[in-house]
Amino acid sequence: MRRVRLGMVGGGQGAFIGSVHRIATRMDGQFELVAGALSSDPARAQASADELGIRSYADFAEMARAEAARPDGAEAVAIVTPNHMHAAPAVVFLNAGIHVICDKPLAATPAQASAIAAAARASRARFFLTHNYCALPMVREARALVAEGALGQLRLVQAEYLQGWLADAAQGKQAEWRTDPARAGAGALGDIGTHAWQLAAFVTGAVPAQVSADLSSMVPGRMVDDDARVVLRYASGAKGGLWASQVAVGQENGLSLRVFGSEAALEWRLQDSERLILTPKGGPARILTRAQDRSASSRTPPGHPEGYLEGFANLYSDIARIIRGDDGPVDRVPGLADGLSGMAFIAAAQASAAQGGAWVEVAP
Amino acid sequence: MRRVRLGMVGGGQGAFIGSVHRIATRMDGQFELVAGALSSDPARAQASADELGIRSYADFAEMARAEAARPDGAEAVAIVTPNHMHAAPAVVFLNAGIHVICDKPLAATPAQASAIAAAARASRARFFLTHNYCALPMVREARALVAEGALGQLRLVQAEYLQGWLADAAQGKQAEWRTDPARAGAGALGDIGTHAWQLAAFVTGAVPAQVSADLSSMVPGRMVDDDARVVLRYASGAKGGLWASQVAVGQENGLSLRVFGSEAALEWRLQDSERLILTPKGGPARILTRAQDRSASSRTPPGHPEGYLEGFANLYSDIARIIRGDDGPVDRVPGLADGLSGMAFIAAAQASAAQGGAWVEVAP
Amino acid sequence: MRRVRLGMVGGGQGAFIGSVHRIATRMDGQFELVAGALSSDPARAQASADELGIRSYADFAEMARAEAARPDGAEAVAIVTPNHMHAAPAVVFLNAGIHVICDKPLAATPAQASAIAAAARASRARFFLTHNYCALPMVREARALVAEGALGQLRLVQAEYLQGWLADAAQGKQAEWRTDPARAGAGALGDIGTHAWQLAAFVTGAVPAQVSADLSSMVPGRMVDDDARVVLRYASGAKGGLWASQVAVGQENGLSLRVFGSEAALEWRLQDSERLILTPKGGPARILTRAQDRSASSRTPPGHPEGYLEGFANLYSDIARIIRGDDGPVDRVPGLADGLSGMAFIAAAQASAAQGGAWVEVAP
Amino acid sequence: MRRVRLGMVGGGQGAFIGSVHRIATRMDGQFELVAGALSSDPARAQASADELGIRSYADFAEMARAEAARPDGAEAVAIVTPNHMHAAPAVVFLNAGIHVICDKPLAATPAQASAIAAAARASRARFFLTHNYCALPMVREARALVAEGALGQLRLVQAEYLQGWLADAAQGKQAEWRTDPARAGAGALGDIGTHAWQLAAFVTGAVPAQVSADLSSMVPGRMVDDDARVVLRYASGAKGGLWASQVAVGQENGLSLRVFGSEAALEWRLQDSERLILTPKGGPARILTRAQDRSASSRTPPGHPEGYLEGFANLYSDIARIIRGDDGPVDRVPGLADGLSGMAFIAAAQASAAQGGAWVEVAP
Repeated sequence: MRRVRLGMVGGGQGAFIGSVHRIATRMDGQFELVAGALSSDPARAQASADELGIRSYADFAEMARAEAARPDGAEAVAIVTPNHMHAAPAVVFLNAGIHVICDKPLAATPAQASAIAAAARASRARFFLTHNYCALPMVREARALVAEGALGQLRLVQAEYLQGWLADAAQGKQAEWRTDPARAGAGALGDIGTHAWQLAAFVTGAVPAQVSADLSSMVPGRMVDDDARVVLRYASGAKGGLWASQVAVGQENGLSLRVFGSEAALEWRLQDSERLILTPKGGPARILTRAQDRSASSRTPPGHPEGYLEGFANLYSDIARIIRGDDGPVDRVPGLADGLSGMAFIAAAQASAAQGGAWVEVAP
Repeated sequence: MRRVRLGMVGGGQGAFIGSVHRIATRMDGQFELVAGALSSDPARAQASADELGIRSYADFAEMARAEAARPDGAEAVAIVTPNHMHAAPAVVFLNAGIHVICDKPLAATPAQASAIAAAARASRARFFLTHNYCALPMVREARALVAEGALGQLRLVQAEYLQGWLADAAQGKQAEWRTDPARAGAGALGDIGTHAWQLAAFVTGAVPAQVSADLSSMVPGRMVDDDARVVLRYASGAKGGLWASQVAVGQENGLSLRVFGSEAALEWRLQDSERLILTPKGGPARILTRAQDRSASSRTPPGHPEGYLEGFANLYSDIARIIRGDDGPVDRVPGLADGLSGMAFIAAAQASAAQGGAWVEVAP
Repeated sequence: MRRVRLGMVGGGQGAFIGSVHRIATRMDGQFELVAGALSSDPARAQASADELGIRSYADFAEMARAEAARPDGAEAVAIVTPNHMHAAPAVVFLNAGIHVICDKPLAATPAQASAIAAAARASRARFFLTHNYCALPMVREARALVAEGALGQLRLVQAEYLQGWLADAAQGKQAEWRTDPARAGAGALGDIGTHAWQLAAFVTGAVPAQVSADLSSMVPGRMVDDDARVVLRYASGAKGGLWASQVAVGQENGLSLRVFGSEAALEWRLQDSERLILTPKGGPARILTRAQDRSASSRTPPGHPEGYLEGFANLYSDIARIIRGDDGPVDRVPGLADGLSGMAFIAAAQASAAQGGAWVEVAP
Repeated sequence: MRRVRLGMVGGGQGAFIGSVHRIATRMDGQFELVAGALSSDPARAQASADELGIRSYADFAEMARAEAARPDGAEAVAIVTPNHMHAAPAVVFLNAGIHVICDKPLAATPAQASAIAAAARASRARFFLTHNYCALPMVREARALVAEGALGQLRLVQAEYLQGWLADAAQGKQAEWRTDPARAGAGALGDIGTHAWQLAAFVTGAVPAQVSADLSSMVPGRMVDDDARVVLRYASGAKGGLWASQVAVGQENGLSLRVFGSEAALEWRLQDSERLILTPKGGPARILTRAQDRSASSRTPPGHPEGYLEGFANLYSDIARIIRGDDGPVDRVPGLADGLSGMAFIAAAQASAAQGGAWVEVAP
């Protein structure tokens, strides 16, 4: 099994998600990290690269040129910068024919998203978006159950992503860029709302046609939403809700999905990520575990808890497989379409909220 | 401890909630059931009364007259009929000076509600509404915690009441009247949504100023809402959501309340009714049980599960106490104000839904 | 439905379990409390009886004579005294032809137990023992599942009853008699261990043939066991464990049962008494609720939590039915055999512990 | 941060635990796998090594010699063979001055264990034993809480490790060697009982002085125990129980620990490994998460579930740190003492069971 040569943009010392991506690439031994433009601060970029023993670049554009020119250059690049810094490197690497693995959400603005989309469509390289939760085994099983009709006709969807860590004025690097409209584009809506949006779509196979949103900034002085309550209408007549909050005190990472059909219901919670509750009409509820998972996306027998990092690694292993051209499912790996859908969700929700909750079409 | 003499309207053989009320009156031995107009079918009324060994009336108006005239007549009457049959007997008994204990929601129409309100205001008798869930010990403790400021400033409220038993076309007496607009007035919104509305108000001490609602009838041909998703705005800036559904397959009686303040959060679920989770900012979460309850509303030491019937009985015991004029808290017993608030909620939600989710003021 | 006339011995003001029995008799309206010898203190006996509006006796023997002689006298008597005071009234009432409903355990000593057994066998009256937990709907369903072979061959049983309220030296009336060898006979072993023993036998239909026990008195100066760990061997080759403790700090009333067969497993916990987990070999686990209960022993639809008091009331309703001679299951109501089995368990465990954990046969 | 050069014995294609060890070594990037004697089948050994891109040896003794001689040879070796194959390579590598990281239990026989102990004591190299569960953050927090006295005086311990996968006659490589007395030494007692034993000792800081055991072979024809029920006595007067089973149908990997002291209790379950319940006397229970963890042994913020593989990786990261001589805690990494204690536990339990459950001293 050939290891894929990987570069990274962002993720220098002190970063959070860059470290998560690196662990994910290492877990299954399918990647070799070879180069990075790890920080916009040249000294930190160099020090971070030295620690990792990889080629260092002060500038991502230079990195794209140089790596594309090397026979042993990076085949793919992970972009793990704040939202407003996704588009520029993504475009450059796509143009250079290097696959892009981009953190979510796609971008901070619609214009940035469009630039990525154009580059991706024009490039022979692929574009992946790390909506990691959809790669957890029981989420994949939930999708399979819906796809095979276990729920009957879709009726109700409730997706939630609740955190409490921004209940007070932002402190620290992670909080600061996430509450800066210029760098984040949106608040809870973009940072975690897009995860809930993608998760619901991934499992149900359906995307809402219209949304009505109420966005709040509970913390005085905050310039982005920190609580987003969105009502969903599907073209099929199904209804739903999406609630994303970063001021839900006491919630660490409360992602959950409930789906009700005419024949059965599914419930999944990240906090108990290895269990999926399937309740057929008339009951009883069944506690599905990896013993019932058919996605072949775990490393240990059921009962040995896997979680967040394993989900990320599942995504990376699929990506490595696709890059190498190996067989296996492709459509379960999120990409450009998921990214554009997330941007359309943010735009529609913001537009709705600006009009006092009017129903707004979600761009297809 | 003198037993309060009680009459009942509705609750004949085959009824559901009448039986629950009778159990609740018996549990603490504070009531004596003496008379009833138990059914609109005279034969069933008589047979039901005989089984209970009480005076039987074919007509509630006659019952009000006769009982008011007897020195040993009913002091209070429980009205346990379908919604559209609350107002007429309530008015008659209030006019006769007999206390009324009425099942929720207050009425099927605003006009009926107004009639009850007028009669209640004019009467020396009291009017009680059996929102039973607010009488559970841990709900009372939740209210006490909010009242003493444990949560800080109120920010987010999420109240849900999910059932699945009406996922298909109605069958049976209980389902039929609840899905008949004339008899029920509203569907899930009135039958269980008002419970969630009252519960949230009871615990938080706050009532939303505006609502935006999306009502659905998921089952073909159904004439009332069977799924209601309501967004809430409080005058204080707090936000919330209320979700009531009777097509949430697999949910038996999924009532829950989550409240987030600036300093702490509360979570309570009927399914686990003896535990209340209090999470201060920074954690850890604390699992409160009746060992921490200060409401003195239980009959057994903590750890001996009490539930639905005990909650109902707590309400009835408070009512008996108030009727007898004994000391003790009065404001925790729901009454006319709760009933009118529930009607205002139904009206505002229906008006909002009719206008495509426009924000509608909730009448004070 | 005729109400059964009931007397009570013990249960005066300040008592715990007497009040529970009275609530249970009232819940379904199948009993009428008519007489009592409610306390060994004559003044308290009278005051307690007056509060309840029943005939008062200073002495239970006098009560038995007088009630047996009245045409409207008590048909049955509930004995809710401390353990050492079960036998004397039980014998007197049985001799008088009055049915006895006795709290558990059967007695404080084997001699007392034998006296009850002799009287019960000689009497035309019936003897019932209030092991209340076995009357909970999901426990009855567990028994039905085992009986119909859902578990295959019985292999492993684990019964636990953990409390923490005696973690320090006893304070208060309830604690004092329970830690007095003369009045209690045994400590945790008798007070709650017999519940676990009966529960395991009720569900599995099997009684261990031998036990090996380690009994402890963790609190300095305590004269009875406050922690009992008992290993179980069944004649069939099945194995098990029973753990009863009253020094398990933080446990309110932690009764649970786990049963593993060759084909499936069952798990039930009092804390979550309305759910029963059935896991067939190969899974998935199924969460059974009252929607799957076939015992017809509840008052409300599934999802409306019932609990401790309802379990007690289920027992009393069965007893009323049996006394009246109505149809219905008889063998699910605990009686003399359960009481004698509990005494045999206590004796065998104490004998084993005295011999350092030697295997001791449980008397049949 | 220098990467430690690692070799591996066992863990060729088709193996389970070898793969887990390799993932653990990769997760934090602190090891470089350089060489292996991955299978006793030379062809499989070579193919496995080729797949991993490492030096291959047909024989572990040759590997020890060769690697010790190379300047870039393995500094440490992971031994991931069946139990009876731990001692021979461990001795050889220790003698060669190469650190040993050995899977549990220590060995299949006391003689093998003694050989390892002698070699470890004579060597300048270190010996580590991969009891992985004790490296989970909330288990480390539990240990810290006990150590600082949060529980008061230790009273009760209950450790359980329940699996159901051997409920029928063994099928497959993993099952076969584990049920072969020659290769495994013991059944459930050794394979998972030693985990429970070590976990209890790790958290409580105490080792039982005596055990009384009942061992069963529930599956006909099985030559090792598949269910072990062990009663524990501590020198301090504390009591406990350990239950290990591989025929507990429906249990995937049910490891749990409950500890009760005079002042508070702790409860932890692998199935919910990120939460630790601490209940002080008088309550309420507190749900501790990694937000309260002080062990600095996680990679992500609390609420992003970590689990089995991360626990293994925590152990490996500690081992890398120790091998490199970096600062940090040493005593939390299991080693020879844990291995010998596990062997003493197996021996004492087997001796006790052979004597019908007699109390047997656990060798210190």
